[in-house]
Amino acid sequence: MKRNTDKPVKITEVCLRDGSHVMRHQFTEEQVRTVTRALDQAGMHYIEVSHGDGLGGSTLQYGKSLVNEMKLIEAAVEECQQATVAVLLLPGIGTVHELKQARQLGAGLVRVATHVTEADVSAQHIQFARELEMEVCGFLMMAHSAPVQKLVEQAKLMESYGAQAVYVTDSAGALLPNEVRERIRALRQSLNIEIGFHGHNNLSLAVANTVAAIEEGATRIDGSVRCLGAGAGNAQTEVLLSVLQRMGMDVGIDLYKMIDLAEDVVGPMLPGPQEIQKGSLIMGYAGVYSSFLLHAERAGKKFSIDPRDILIELGKRKVVGGQEDMILDVAAELAKAKSEV
Amino acid sequence: MKRNTDKPVKITEVCLRDGSHVMRHQFTEEQVRTVTRALDQAGMHYIEVSHGDGLGGSTLQYGKSLVNEMKLIEAAVEECQQATVAVLLLPGIGTVHELKQARQLGAGLVRVATHVTEADVSAQHIQFARELEMEVCGFLMMAHSAPVQKLVEQAKLMESYGAQAVYVTDSAGALLPNEVRERIRALRQSLNIEIGFHGHNNLSLAVANTVAAIEEGATRIDGSVRCLGAGAGNAQTEVLLSVLQRMGMDVGIDLYKMIDLAEDVVGPMLPGPQEIQKGSLIMGYAGVYSSFLLHAERAGKKFSIDPRDILIELGKRKVVGGQEDMILDVAAELAKAKSEV
Repeated sequence: MKRNTDKPVKITEVCLRDGSHVMRHQFTEEQVRTVTRALDQAGMHYIEVSHGDGLGGSTLQYGKSLVNEMKLIEAAVEECQQATVAVLLLPGIGTVHELKQARQLGAGLVRVATHVTEADVSAQHIQFARELEMEVCGFLMMAHSAPVQKLVEQAKLMESYGAQAVYVTDSAGALLPNEVRERIRALRQSLNIEIGFHGHNNLSLAVANTVAAIEEGATRIDGSVRCLGAGAGNAQTEVLLSVLQRMGMDVGIDLYKMIDLAEDVVGPMLPGPQEIQKGSLIMGYAGVYSSFLLHAERAGKKFSIDPRDILIELGKRKVVGGQEDMILDVAAELAKAKSEV
Repeated sequence: MKRNTDKPVKITEVCLRDGSHVMRHQFTEEQVRTVTRALDQAGMHYIEVSHGDGLGGSTLQYGKSLVNEMKLIEAAVEECQQATVAVLLLPGIGTVHELKQARQLGAGLVRVATHVTEADVSAQHIQFARELEMEVCGFLMMAHSAPVQKLVEQAKLMESYGAQAVYVTDSAGALLPNEVRERIRALRQSLNIEIGFHGHNNLSLAVANTVAAIEEGATRIDGSVRCLGAGAGNAQTEVLLSVLQRMGMDVGIDLYKMIDLAEDVVGPMLPGPQEIQKGSLIMGYAGVYSSFLLHAERAGKKFSIDPRDILIELGKRKVVGGQEDMILDVAAELAKAKSEV
């Protein structure tokens, strides 16, 4: 396995993990092998393979995987001549047990993900990954929803636990380029480790935000081929690489091979077009989780309120996953306010 | 008809004109009426209705329209309570005769489009539009392919003919945000008229480029609902408006109505997904016309050269539409160079 330390920017392809949401976690082993092989041959640096919600995510709550993710990780490792297989772990969903298993199968990098204000729950997993001699990154999700100072404070926690990089994770695709710049800059000033950026395309800004992050010094970047990721998908890898080449940045990945695999390998797998449609757009605009959409529609019907008004209010209140019961409360409040006008 | 002079930024919706390419010029009168009505009700400022290649474009060479564009313009004018109907005119394809007819039917704005180095051919049409008491803008296409100083010089020509605004038209979706900023800034410094920006999404940068243009002082902006435009489509209007609202800019267009019409009116019309695929990506990367793609594929087969290499070389040489015979020459040269290695 090649070390990626010589690259100006290290790319992690997430279509086999973030894309798992779009595939409703029904990736077959053959699909994972085919995509991984093509990515590895193109020179991709890291290939993330896990349930969409990370190790251990295959549950009734988050969606059952068709194939046990350990089998998929093992298959991906077997296909890699040079790339490193990465896994995602959300403490509370995945455990050190699964991390150890993934490590034994050959995963070389783990990203330990928490809500942007809850970095403290990552301590044990980051430390354990270091003991396993894995590369380990912190992943601060919904990074748009915390003030910059809070983000910095949380990233420093992850650094103190032993993370070798921390990602600004724009889970809802809600950040604007200037907001990305501000965050990356603040982290660069306060941390001694690498900074990463993971962007979603809900506001059609994922590639531009990623470029902005790189310009500010981020050295770890995520992309998904053909936008195969949650919401409106991620920064489209083959497009991002085209832009980086246009900027004169060579990251050592073969652009033509990436374009071909996007067209011939990943394209035919897409269950539907990865366009920015009503749901994903409002998710980015309001800055909320996609899981809120259905709840807001139901609450909107019940209280005769536009579900978008509910989502925007939830975004303002920075409601997080697990607080879905607040959606009805917010809808009721909005209905009351409306009736009093 | 309302004047749009009070808006900080004036938006022209181009899905009924640039989108005509995607629809293979088969828009029905009913489709134009339905889309125009919904756009007008949402508060859209300008709605462009013409053949994809502008007035007079309905030919065997550019593609025959299903319905005479004058009928479509008339229908759109009838549906508008407040919006202004715009038309596009490429001198050499459209004539003053068609412009006069469109004006008589109620079109209020014309954009006179030339290749970025050929502004001089727009003089007669711009002057005639002023005589017709239409708003008139210059539209400098393939703006990425000329040095900034050349662009400024050409824009000044259009200003001297009487254009009330000049657009930087990123026809191939090839510009990066910094390149957009540089161009808008240079035009702002040298011209006394409004500056516009028309972006395509081939490199997934249309929305970001448009925002960059606005930040640099562009006050005329194009978008296409659901990316319904040539190549990878344009800046997606409803997404762009969401971003502008997030930035605190109110352009007086109802965002929810735009999102609804994108989902319910335009979405069902799409002949296929408006994703960034192989052809549109390489078009943006190489900075060439979409019409070159097929030629390059044929030439590539003939000379056993990757068509992408041909397109990139064509982009470097700034080959323009009408010079398609150069494609075989370039392929032959590349094949020769390859055989000599």
